[in-house]
Amino acid sequence: MKILGIDPGSIITGFGVIDVDKLKFNYITSGSIKTKGDFVNRIAIIFLEIQKIIIKHNPDVVVIERIFMRPDRPNPESSIKLGHARGAIISAAAINNFKIIEYSPNQIKKTLVGKGHASKDQVVFMVCKTLKLNKNPQTDAADALAGAICHAYHCI
Amino acid sequence: MKILGIDPGSIITGFGVIDVDKLKFNYITSGSIKTKGDFVNRIAIIFLEIQKIIIKHNPDVVVIERIFMRPDRPNPESSIKLGHARGAIISAAAINNFKIIEYSPNQIKKTLVGKGHASKDQVVFMVCKTLKLNKNPQTDAADALAGAICHAYHCI
Repeated sequence: MKILGIDPGSIITGFGVIDVDKLKFNYITSGSIKTKGDFVNRIAIIFLEIQKIIIKHNPDVVVIERIFMRPDRPNPESSIKLGHARGAIISAAAINNFKIIEYSPNQIKKTLVGKGHASKDQVVFMVCKTLKLNKNPQTDAADALAGAICHAYHCI
Repeated sequence: MKILGIDPGSIITGFGVIDVDKLKFNYITSGSIKTKGDFVNRIAIIFLEIQKIIIKHNPDVVVIERIFMRPDRPNPESSIKLGHARGAIISAAAINNFKIIEYSPNQIKKTLVGKGHASKDQVVFMVCKTLKLNKNPQTDAADALAGAICHAYHCI
């Protein structure tokens, strides 16, 4: 099963592709989409780049991180921006008829590290360990790979 | 100049197409996209339907209402949903290389009615008067047509 994980963001969107055969994990690629220009342009770039990645890697499923908002610290501005980025990603999957699965950041951390409030470093460590990477991926790419690994564990 | 106006919403997205030659306004069509299913599916429907409308009518420009949020009453949940819908619309325009112009609700009201705090009824009245419609369009379609008319006035 080929899984494309995406960590959405209007400025940087991370992505990571893995292939999983039962408990055998294979890292395929990962990286980040850095957007520029005005806000509308940034969202258009996310859509177009994710579409390219989907067409190139033809994943079985697209995994995207669910928006997490602390009820005690809502940030409507950044939520709106993140919503746009996610809308573009869902659209890129929709046009190619791909299935989207969502996991919350806590579900991803819990699946990889064993606790929902694991640190970023712990998540990156488990991503590297699971995929046998010698070098830490960029933060956003690591989050995207973590989402993909999370889904793999949920399917096994 | 053919203008597609869009009033984004994750449950109902209004649209309206007009053609403007100097000060001569021609109504072409309007309606609303009613979404269903889970949230991801709703966003996918908006993208796919807006894409169909863009391809069918081939507008010179796509006008979309900017998100308005009262600072004293932020609603992060609905802002996130609206952000997704707008992300899907921007994506539909991006894939077809169409230009997107944004206006705030107040700019639209001020342009059509003369005051930024005009009522819904006043906006609908001006939409019908400008486009010589015998019947009020649906609310979301009227808002979309209002955005298109607003842009036409800004271009003349």
